[in-house]
Amino acid sequence: MARVVVDVMLKPEILDPQGQAVAGALPRLGVTGVASVRVGKRIEIEFTGEPNLEQARQIADKLLANPVIEDFTVRVEESAEASR
Amino acid sequence: MARVVVDVMLKPEILDPQGQAVAGALPRLGVTGVASVRVGKRIEIEFTGEPNLEQARQIADKLLANPVIEDFTVRVEESAEASR
Repeated sequence: MARVVVDVMLKPEILDPQGQAVAGALPRLGVTGVASVRVGKRIEIEFTGEPNLEQARQIADKLLANPVIEDFTVRVEESAEASR
Repeated sequence: MARVVVDVMLKPEILDPQGQAVAGALPRLGVTGVASVRVGKRIEIEFTGEPNLEQARQIADKLLANPVIEDFTVRVEESAEASR
């Protein structure tokens, strides 16, 4: 089965309070040197046959992302089973 | 600046109602041929200097993922500025 991965992130100019909360917690973990953290979504779509990027793009645009505040990228993940 | 990407997904054996809801909505978009959908998180960490994978792994393990129900992968994203 072929897997298509859709990454949905807030646009760079949109405030990301969740990412800021993570960044603000890092000094308590002893982590320094982090400039910023952004939190988004990763969606894995398993197609039964050939992966259909055009269909995946349509799903992302209509269902997964809000195009007003979010950008998304769509790609085929080749060796999905091997990496997990 | 170097960007490290952390992908956090529910373990394969854990039920993902959000992914199932997306999969259930696809026929209404006219999309068939999708076997399953899983929804997880993508976190982008910008380091001010060199990306520190070990530190990113520690952040993911302690702050971003719940290791009981979630798996995560950590990787350096090279051409971050170019792709967005």
